Amino acid sequence: MLDHSGPTDNHLHAWDRDHFFHPSTHMAQHARGETPNRIVTGGEGVYIVDRDGRRSLDAFGGLYCVNVGYGRKSIADAIADQAHKLAYYHAYAGHGSEPSIELAKMVIDRAPKGMSRVFFGLSGSDANETNIKLIWYVNNVLGRPEKKKIISRWRGYHGSGLMTGSLTGLAGFHNLFDLPLGPILHTEAPYYFRRADRSLTEEQFADFCAARLEEMILAEGPDTIAAFVGEPLLGTGGIVPPPAGYWPKIQAVLKKYDILLVVDEVITGFGRLGTMFGSDFYGLEPDLITIAKGLTSAYAPLSGVIVSEKLWKILVEGSDKFGPIGHGWTYSSHPLCAAAGVANLQLIDELDLLANVREVGPYLRGALAEALADHPLVGEVRGEGMLAAVELVKDKADRVFFDPPNKVSVRVASAMLERGVIARAMPQGDIIGFAPPLCLTREEADIVVDATRQAIEAVAASL
Amino acid sequence: MLDHSGPTDNHLHAWDRDHFFHPSTHMAQHARGETPNRIVTGGEGVYIVDRDGRRSLDAFGGLYCVNVGYGRKSIADAIADQAHKLAYYHAYAGHGSEPSIELAKMVIDRAPKGMSRVFFGLSGSDANETNIKLIWYVNNVLGRPEKKKIISRWRGYHGSGLMTGSLTGLAGFHNLFDLPLGPILHTEAPYYFRRADRSLTEEQFADFCAARLEEMILAEGPDTIAAFVGEPLLGTGGIVPPPAGYWPKIQAVLKKYDILLVVDEVITGFGRLGTMFGSDFYGLEPDLITIAKGLTSAYAPLSGVIVSEKLWKILVEGSDKFGPIGHGWTYSSHPLCAAAGVANLQLIDELDLLANVREVGPYLRGALAEALADHPLVGEVRGEGMLAAVELVKDKADRVFFDPPNKVSVRVASAMLERGVIARAMPQGDIIGFAPPLCLTREEADIVVDATRQAIEAVAASL
Ligand SMILES: Cc1ncc(COP(=O)(O)O)c(C=O)c1O
Ligand SMILES: Cc1ncc(COP(=O)(O)O)c(C=O)c1O
Repeated sequence: MLDHSGPTDNHLHAWDRDHFFHPSTHMAQHARGETPNRIVTGGEGVYIVDRDGRRSLDAFGGLYCVNVGYGRKSIADAIADQAHKLAYYHAYAGHGSEPSIELAKMVIDRAPKGMSRVFFGLSGSDANETNIKLIWYVNNVLGRPEKKKIISRWRGYHGSGLMTGSLTGLAGFHNLFDLPLGPILHTEAPYYFRRADRSLTEEQFADFCAARLEEMILAEGPDTIAAFVGEPLLGTGGIVPPPAGYWPKIQAVLKKYDILLVVDEVITGFGRLGTMFGSDFYGLEPDLITIAKGLTSAYAPLSGVIVSEKLWKILVEGSDKFGPIGHGWTYSSHPLCAAAGVANLQLIDELDLLANVREVGPYLRGALAEALADHPLVGEVRGEGMLAAVELVKDKADRVFFDPPNKVSVRVASAMLERGVIARAMPQGDIIGFAPPLCLTREEADIVVDATRQAIEAVAASL
Repeated sequence: MLDHSGPTDNHLHAWDRDHFFHPSTHMAQHARGETPNRIVTGGEGVYIVDRDGRRSLDAFGGLYCVNVGYGRKSIADAIADQAHKLAYYHAYAGHGSEPSIELAKMVIDRAPKGMSRVFFGLSGSDANETNIKLIWYVNNVLGRPEKKKIISRWRGYHGSGLMTGSLTGLAGFHNLFDLPLGPILHTEAPYYFRRADRSLTEEQFADFCAARLEEMILAEGPDTIAAFVGEPLLGTGGIVPPPAGYWPKIQAVLKKYDILLVVDEVITGFGRLGTMFGSDFYGLEPDLITIAKGLTSAYAPLSGVIVSEKLWKILVEGSDKFGPIGHGWTYSSHPLCAAAGVANLQLIDELDLLANVREVGPYLRGALAEALADHPLVGEVRGEGMLAAVELVKDKADRVFFDPPNKVSVRVASAMLERGVIARAMPQGDIIGFAPPLCLTREEADIVVDATRQAIEAVAASL
């Protein structure tokens, strides 16, 4: 490491502009120094600090991933121990390491009923990639080569790769990349607040979503549809819990046509909704579950696919027929990352974070609603567990949205940051998202709510 | 962590069989306990050790990734420090961390001329995924929406995802997964030993490969071909250096039709050929370079795409026109992994590993050739830098290959393992691959050669 004191400071900022290609960033403005950069150096609990000594309450937990909060010594110690013991060996051809096997066991112990095996990857995206490969493999083993299409939802987020970005149902991840690719189809977003027909009740809108799904299946031919992929509640698409009755209706349609259910629990896994998995929360019966983020609280990159016993049996049959599976990443089940996962899951239990989510999550949403629900620019305050969103509208009575170029939510998020609180302007629509570490206290929730209210008022005054 | 002494030993093995879905493994045999599993617990230099106290010389460096060797304290210390300081913050929207910016600078300092920016991912596969996205983006910005097809090579290896597995040109990664997907095309493998027309000289075969590429471009239409992707030398496809004259001829064809060159340096990057990059070794002028493995020596999962200044300018133009790029992974440029990268690149310099590759690499190949070239089952001994391969044949004079079900190379690799040396039976053909840590000594090379010779003789006797 360089000595970062004194004049090298400037070097680091220059190098950042000159050589570092940031994800989801305006390349031109960043390179020209027109937008702020921020070099984060430390964190504790729900707070991060940067090189300039600024401290912010991170009410988005990184990217909804730092579930246990920053600066947890037990996880850092576990990483350090593993790094000194054995940083890496691969897991191909039956090889493994102690922490990765232990973590597989811990994940299955916590998973919904009927889940059997864990395949570890690095990112939520690559885990969804693995899902698609497994689905196609399974239907080939079963002799159903035509049953390969996958239905996801508009406003779903499942990754940023080519196929996983295709599963994603957000324009900003499709445009300019020629996505979505086939054989991925998108059905109705279960987004009650934005329903076209405002006369519908939640239950009626859920019926409508299920009917739209069934229509698509029938139009395409049920024998061509392999799987349905969905987050328990929409995350990046706007932090939107499904309308009442949605999941039972959707699951009934999937069962009827023998379509696999992939539940993407990258955000909801490991406590975000106050249950270990979102599948438990909504009564889902997944064939495959995608995990990442909360698995390690982002202390090290690790993702996974949890495979049901039902699917595992078909995979076993496949390898008996066709030999070893041709799938793997060099860093599948990386020992360092698995060690972080083991320590992280232990900490979630020790701190009883699920209980805190069930207590402080509703408190946060309640306080947001109390502070903001009547504000003329606030269309809806919603959420579930330790997730919340405030959706902004131009006209509340007629539910008129702002034009995107106004960037209202970006301005609110900036105004919040000035007040020391990080929230996320969600990418599609004017929605302020909250996904704080699961250890958030009531006092910290109050700080978040105050900053949100002040920021919305400041932006409202400037419109 | 559990107490792994005593009776829990059995638990760990049972959990492995019951819950851990290994990459590239025979799921059925593993689950039933019919194939060995191996739980690796430590390593030092070129050696690994497992829970049963067995020690093996790892002549494949993990999966050609542990470039600096196992048990390097300086990297483990850097990881530990970063884990205690700041394990994670994201890099979206201009955020960064000290080690990731520093590493970007270090990579560009070491990269071939004309390279400008680094985008960090997790795996070699996701970096190639990023490459495809950037290529499509660039051609959309340039107003060439039809120029999107990508040509890779049979026997290339570029990953295990859906599109990256499509770039890969090996049957075992395609079968059962319905790959390759369009718009990926495959051209001739530059594999001189396996050429169809045995009368060709190397130079003539290189001409043939270039002509085949040009034919494909013309048949498809040059305006539809965006990029060519290749490893400097074939890795997983058999560890095959290109025939003399190959790259200049290929590059001439690409220039002629305005086709981008993506050089996949996941194996060759950071010293494997005795130069910092394989592009330097072969005189390549890449538009994009894929890096992973040697970037951190696998101590933590990190990959990257190095973008040329030429392409960066178009990306900048794109974001000025269309806004922030819709691409990123939650764990892009993970601070922990970047810290490992910084310490790793420092160590490569400090230990002068490139010089060792230039010395011990040829020594290893020379000794392998001396011990084996005349053996009736050995068709070819080849390699470059710290890479070597021994290709086995049934009939040397007529270059007749073994039938795959005989698994001759798998049997040789098993016989080597019994003798304490890990080599890899490459997935397609009977090829024993060697990619030891770059710190291999002559004495260790001798051990590898002895074990290889003994194993081949043992298997030959059993045929
Ligand atoms: C539900 C969901 N799935 C998948 C992903 C992709 O994960 P990653 O960014 O690690 O690739 C995300 C990331 O935000 C996510 O929210
Ligand atoms: C040349 C090359 N490219 C890409 C990859 C894929 O890397 P990963 O396994 O990290 O996804 C590999 C892996 O062996 C490789 O050798």
